[in-house]
Amino acid sequence: MRRVKIYDTTLRDGTQAEYFSLSLADKIRIAEKLSQIGIHYIEGGWPGANPRDRDFFGEIRNYNLDSSLIAAFGSTHHKDRPPESDPVFQELLISQAPVVTIFGKSWNLHVKEVLRTTLERNLEIITHSLRYLKPHVQELFYDAEHFFDGFQADPEYALKTLEAALAGGADCLVLCETNGGALTSKVVEIIKAVQARFPEAPLGIHAHNDGEMGVANSLAAVELGVSQVQGTVNGFGERCGNANLCSIIPGIRLKLGLDCVSDDNLRRMSELSRFVYEIANISPNRYQPYVGRSAFAHKGGVHAAAVKLNPRAYEHIRPELVGNFRNFPVSDLSGKSNIFLLAQTLGLKPADHDAAVQAAAEKIRELTQNRHQLKEADILQTILSKVKELESQGYQFEEADGSLKLLVFASLGKGKDYFRMLSYRIVDQKVGDIEAPVPEATLRVRVGLNEVHTAALGTGPVDALYNALLKALIRFYPRLVEMRLEDYKVRVLPGATGSTAAKVRVFIESRDAHDRWGSVGVSHDIIEASWLALVDSINYKLYKDEHPSLGVAS
Amino acid sequence: MRRVKIYDTTLRDGTQAEYFSLSLADKIRIAEKLSQIGIHYIEGGWPGANPRDRDFFGEIRNYNLDSSLIAAFGSTHHKDRPPESDPVFQELLISQAPVVTIFGKSWNLHVKEVLRTTLERNLEIITHSLRYLKPHVQELFYDAEHFFDGFQADPEYALKTLEAALAGGADCLVLCETNGGALTSKVVEIIKAVQARFPEAPLGIHAHNDGEMGVANSLAAVELGVSQVQGTVNGFGERCGNANLCSIIPGIRLKLGLDCVSDDNLRRMSELSRFVYEIANISPNRYQPYVGRSAFAHKGGVHAAAVKLNPRAYEHIRPELVGNFRNFPVSDLSGKSNIFLLAQTLGLKPADHDAAVQAAAEKIRELTQNRHQLKEADILQTILSKVKELESQGYQFEEADGSLKLLVFASLGKGKDYFRMLSYRIVDQKVGDIEAPVPEATLRVRVGLNEVHTAALGTGPVDALYNALLKALIRFYPRLVEMRLEDYKVRVLPGATGSTAAKVRVFIESRDAHDRWGSVGVSHDIIEASWLALVDSINYKLYKDEHPSLGVAS
Repeated sequence: MRRVKIYDTTLRDGTQAEYFSLSLADKIRIAEKLSQIGIHYIEGGWPGANPRDRDFFGEIRNYNLDSSLIAAFGSTHHKDRPPESDPVFQELLISQAPVVTIFGKSWNLHVKEVLRTTLERNLEIITHSLRYLKPHVQELFYDAEHFFDGFQADPEYALKTLEAALAGGADCLVLCETNGGALTSKVVEIIKAVQARFPEAPLGIHAHNDGEMGVANSLAAVELGVSQVQGTVNGFGERCGNANLCSIIPGIRLKLGLDCVSDDNLRRMSELSRFVYEIANISPNRYQPYVGRSAFAHKGGVHAAAVKLNPRAYEHIRPELVGNFRNFPVSDLSGKSNIFLLAQTLGLKPADHDAAVQAAAEKIRELTQNRHQLKEADILQTILSKVKELESQGYQFEEADGSLKLLVFASLGKGKDYFRMLSYRIVDQKVGDIEAPVPEATLRVRVGLNEVHTAALGTGPVDALYNALLKALIRFYPRLVEMRLEDYKVRVLPGATGSTAAKVRVFIESRDAHDRWGSVGVSHDIIEASWLALVDSINYKLYKDEHPSLGVAS
Repeated sequence: MRRVKIYDTTLRDGTQAEYFSLSLADKIRIAEKLSQIGIHYIEGGWPGANPRDRDFFGEIRNYNLDSSLIAAFGSTHHKDRPPESDPVFQELLISQAPVVTIFGKSWNLHVKEVLRTTLERNLEIITHSLRYLKPHVQELFYDAEHFFDGFQADPEYALKTLEAALAGGADCLVLCETNGGALTSKVVEIIKAVQARFPEAPLGIHAHNDGEMGVANSLAAVELGVSQVQGTVNGFGERCGNANLCSIIPGIRLKLGLDCVSDDNLRRMSELSRFVYEIANISPNRYQPYVGRSAFAHKGGVHAAAVKLNPRAYEHIRPELVGNFRNFPVSDLSGKSNIFLLAQTLGLKPADHDAAVQAAAEKIRELTQNRHQLKEADILQTILSKVKELESQGYQFEEADGSLKLLVFASLGKGKDYFRMLSYRIVDQKVGDIEAPVPEATLRVRVGLNEVHTAALGTGPVDALYNALLKALIRFYPRLVEMRLEDYKVRVLPGATGSTAAKVRVFIESRDAHDRWGSVGVSHDIIEASWLALVDSINYKLYKDEHPSLGVAS
């Protein structure tokens, strides 16, 4: 089976994306993860251009990345200085990276206007740069910058630059679609021309996404036989980004059936994507192909029913192959079949639960027209109405499974009040510009027959309130010590008046040793919205611990 | 020039996206916008499946959408009921839409497992459905659902379904890549086979993005000659979304040079994209091709310098063609040339400002090695260091231009304190589950020689604080009445401990009649972070009004 090697440039080209910045420690952690997932080459940076990148190459030598090779990136040597006396160029050797990738100019416009030299001199620079490095490195790649634009401007000259790179000893000619706007048909045509001229030369592809064709262009190149694909995790990169490896790697394995990373590592693709978003502190794109949280979400009732019968009906691959999962979000667009599936996961048994979902959904729709005929149908209808009503107030349950399940238990008459808030008060005071603010919360709650009154400080008002609440509850519910808040998100909903008066939605993700769950609260007051989400989070923890047989835990 | 017509399904297929919901009013507003931009067909919904969609067709008749035709979507008639007695099917006529699009099954798997009928009966249903509608509509389209999967499973049968649609009178056969995972090469191969069989039939393409190839597949189909492209604004849609019209339309106009929308309307593509994000209350994807805020952002110093010389160096199209703009974000990765451009926009005149930027950047780099030689270079260095320091605390200035400019004025020794906070105190109290919380702020500020002490309520604590601040300042600075807070965003930064203790970044967007500006604040305490952003927002308003000659307003 033909093998395609992956060259990741998240740590170099990826960091050219606006809002995407990585510290040295971040870069080391991402390199480790890429290595664990079997990425063949990891480009660490441009040591001559960026001091932080220089540090990376020093530091990464302390790590064992057995399945990956580290690459250093750099330009051809300075037009007026030979390699030996070009300090930026020399950094490539100082980096001690086993792989070096040199980029050079393919486009006559760039040679003349940006590099400001002659076409002939550019060819010499390419050859000399590579020839100088060749004895010092394990593998040597040539990135032909703007190759596709260059070929369209002057095909003969663009091909000559590749000839110059081969003469310098390049192990792979990586054709770069730097400006990212080429059509797939054009990419195919030009790669074929290169292959006609250099039938023996190993080729690579480095595409960008400015025309939203980065993945298609990369996969088209692979179909034509290129052996190296450059890209970034989640497609981070300058402007609209680089070609997205989280889509390219599954494409190579699952669509083209070629060797690339192992099946086990392919199943870590969603993990890799989320890891990099997390480190960069960027909200994941939930619609991202293969790895996004919505990538296998079937919101339409008809689709959800069909997928339950046969996932191939509306899924191009099985989500588990890339470590993702199918989901059936709740929404007012969804048919009853989504609710049916939700009810099943909650241990309910709606009518005809042994029949196919479509038939059951039909049945429930029919039954709910006569609301008193069947209790389970009533319950589903009640849940649907309640969800709709709360959604109209700004709630969203798609990630707040904890809040949603509590709502379902309440509709079943199985809800439980573990505690009741009597009052809370937040005082947050700041004196002058220098002193830190002092947020304090006082809280009165009733737990059974006990009334508890606590006070606590925090780093902010919500933290103070959370601390006061835990202080009040922990002696009654000691297992709350197992709970951790993993994420706290605030979304401002559109308001009619000035924006500080708008409604906010707070979403909290919590976990313990066994489960993760989400909860949600909505209010004009951010403290109240946070309080509501905190209460749901704690109630869900207590409820699921008390009802292990319900199978409510995810 | 060959013409390609655009069929927008944002209002129908788009709303199948998780987290993307539109009210009836939203749908009307989007339809109006699509019409203004010259989109040829606007699919309003599936009137038989969704009561809200039925209302849409009733309401939209009150609007004059002169350049667009409204389309109603529906399935073929029920397998056991003729069109006349199928109530879902009848809704298509009730809708009075001038265009109707019927989808039918092309894939034998779907016919058998989902539709649950025979292959032969499916063909009859397709023909009968279309034939029944034909006399009642202006144009009649056939969506061949799962055509590409169907063709791969059984090419002869898939072609027969198209034949059945032509027999029923379909004006266009729209080939649907419903599961979204087909490679571009496969799409090309199959369209060629359809064209070989039906050389006269007008074809359309409806692609999804599950393999991240929705745009490439659509444009490949256009290159082969299809005359209709279906897609959605921003690529919203079930799972990973539909093919993105905001990339396809520029591709058709600027890459393929075909007739589609006018040049004037093409320049409204960025506006269209943001309008739909805004209505759906979804944060825009800033990396989105063509229309994203980062689509023409040149963060790397080398790229920024080259683009200043010749935009073609790193831009595949001129951003203004799609109503977008070039930007040079500030970041620690950026070379001095970005700061140089920033300084220019602030009315500074760094050394060699008449020379090319590259030369100037070189010069500044050289000068800043000797920090006391040139004052302007010092200032740039000071700004760079301050920005870096604040970024390490969690600040981001890429959208907070107001805060950034204030920082620059301060570095120039041109800052001004319009007021000074002496202390504030927030009290937010809630009693029981039912009563609304009562957030109250008290504030002491000094303005010149006056000390002002105010108190105010608000819908939430930040709103109360803002009200107290305006109350304190308005009699000294009456022009603050012109100011509006347009957006208020909270981002939780990753924290070492439990998440309610994490740092938050607050971003505020403000405007008056002339300008818009952003400001930012970071703290562990959300109230303090909001305070800092509010203060910057007000200071920037006061500063710019006082210094019209500085040209600081955007």
